Amino acid sequence: MQKEKLYVVKIGGNVINNETFLESFLKEFASIEGKKVLVHGGGKLLDTMAAKLGVSQQMINGRRITDEETLKLAVMVYAGSINKKMVAQLQAFGVNAIGLSGADMNCIISEKRKNSGIDFGLAGDVVPGGVNTKNISLILDNGITPVFCSITHDGKGQLLNTNADTLANELAVSLSAKYNVQLHYCFEKKGVLMNAEDDSSLIPEITPTSYSVLIRKEIIRGGMIPKLDNAFEAIKNGVPLVVIAHSSQLINTINRKENAGTYLVAQ
Amino acid sequence: MQKEKLYVVKIGGNVINNETFLESFLKEFASIEGKKVLVHGGGKLLDTMAAKLGVSQQMINGRRITDEETLKLAVMVYAGSINKKMVAQLQAFGVNAIGLSGADMNCIISEKRKNSGIDFGLAGDVVPGGVNTKNISLILDNGITPVFCSITHDGKGQLLNTNADTLANELAVSLSAKYNVQLHYCFEKKGVLMNAEDDSSLIPEITPTSYSVLIRKEIIRGGMIPKLDNAFEAIKNGVPLVVIAHSSQLINTINRKENAGTYLVAQ
Repeated sequence: MQKEKLYVVKIGGNVINNETFLESFLKEFASIEGKKVLVHGGGKLLDTMAAKLGVSQQMINGRRITDEETLKLAVMVYAGSINKKMVAQLQAFGVNAIGLSGADMNCIISEKRKNSGIDFGLAGDVVPGGVNTKNISLILDNGITPVFCSITHDGKGQLLNTNADTLANELAVSLSAKYNVQLHYCFEKKGVLMNAEDDSSLIPEITPTSYSVLIRKEIIRGGMIPKLDNAFEAIKNGVPLVVIAHSSQLINTINRKENAGTYLVAQ
Repeated sequence: MQKEKLYVVKIGGNVINNETFLESFLKEFASIEGKKVLVHGGGKLLDTMAAKLGVSQQMINGRRITDEETLKLAVMVYAGSINKKMVAQLQAFGVNAIGLSGADMNCIISEKRKNSGIDFGLAGDVVPGGVNTKNISLILDNGITPVFCSITHDGKGQLLNTNADTLANELAVSLSAKYNVQLHYCFEKKGVLMNAEDDSSLIPEITPTSYSVLIRKEIIRGGMIPKLDNAFEAIKNGVPLVVIAHSSQLINTINRKENAGTYLVAQ
C-alpha cells in the first residue's frame, strides 16, 4: 500500500518576527492539501523578552545556553505566545490546528544534553524512539494539524529546550515510517546559495555527493552546515525529499517548481 | 446506557502559585481513576509578570480589564508557563495529559465581551454551542487528559482571555451531554464557609433553596456569589454535583467524604 503524503514544515525565527510575513506564510501553509505538521522556533522573540526582563543570554557556537530562567522564557514565548498565535491564525484560515509541546500527549521525549566540555543547561536532545508517532498519527488521522513548538520533556517532569531544526528532522524521520514525508525548511533566504550575499546564486539541487564537494570548496559553510547535515541525515533515514527555501515559496516548492528553492535528494 | 463518569476539575491561582501545593494537588488529580479534565487560571502569576514588565493592570468589580498587552501576557503565562509545567508534571505522574487553549482543535469559541458600560477589552465569553465536545471527546476517549488554560479564541484569529471558573462551568455543562460529569472547584479554602474567617464553619451542603436563604441572610457574599451562581447554573443545566473544596481534598470529595468540602446539589 502506498503511504499517504505528509508535509513537515519548519518555519524560522526571522519570519515569525514579522507579522505580515508570518500571516502570508500561514496562509500558504493552510493551503497545503492533505496532512501537514508545522514546527516553529522563535529565538528572536525570546531574545526580545530576555532583554525586557533582564535575563542575560549566552550563546556558544550559535547554540543557546538554556539556564533555568531562559527555559522559563522559552516555554512562555515558544509554547505560549508564538504557538497559540499561530494556532488561532490557522484556525481562522480553516485549518484545524493544535499547538503541541513535546510534553503534550507525551509526543516527544528528550534528555538533557550531556556536558561534553560545554554545559548547554536545560537543552534537550530527542532520545532514540522519542517521537510518539502513535499519538501524533491519532491527531493527523482525525484531520487535525499539529503545530509543534521546540519545547520537549524528559518524561520525569522536566521541560527542555530543543533546537527547532533538529526537532523538525526527528519528526520527519519518525513519521516517515507511516507516511510519505516531505520536509520543508522555510526561512528568509531563497535557499542554499553559492554566495550568501547574492540571492540569484541559488543552488537548485544538492545530493550527498555534491554536498561534500560544496563543503570541501567552502561554498557551504557556517550555520548552513548543521542545517544541511540535519537534512541529509533525514534523507539517509527515509525522508525522500528535503527542501530549503524562502517562506513565500512553500507552495511553489511543493509543486517542485524550478528555482523556487534548494531541493535535497538522495541522488 | 449509563453515561461514563467524567471529572471536570478547576484549580485556582493561589494553589498554582505555590510549587509544593501544586505538586501535591497534581498528584491527587493524577490518582483520579477514569476520565478527567483539568482547568486552570493563573491570575497571580500574571500579576507578577505584569509587574516585572511594567504592564499596569486594571480590575473592575474583581474582573480584569484585558488590554492588548495584558492579553499577550495572559497567553504567555497561562498557555505557556503554567499549562506546560502542569502537563509535564502530570506526565511524570503517569497521566497522558495534553495542554489546550480554546484555539487548539477549535475546542472553545468565545466572543469579545460586549461593552455594557465597562469595556473589558479582550475578554471572551463562550458562545452558545462554543464547546467542541466532539474534539474533546476524541482526546478523552483515547485515554488522554485535557488540561485547559483559560485562553479561548473567536475563530477569526483573535485569542481572548476567559474567566477560568466560567470556562470550567461551560465545559462541565457541554460535556454532560455525553458523560456523567462531576464538577470540582479546588481552591485554598475548605469550601463555602458560614464565616469566611473561620475554617471550621464549613457549610457541608447547599441546594438552590438553601442558597437563596444564605444570600438573603448575607452569609454568602462578595466573590463567592459569582462562583456559586456559576455552580448552580451548571446544576440547572445537567451537572448533577458540584463540589467546592480545598485543593488537598479532591480525592476525599470524590469519595463523598463528609466535611471534606461543600457539596452543591439540585435538591
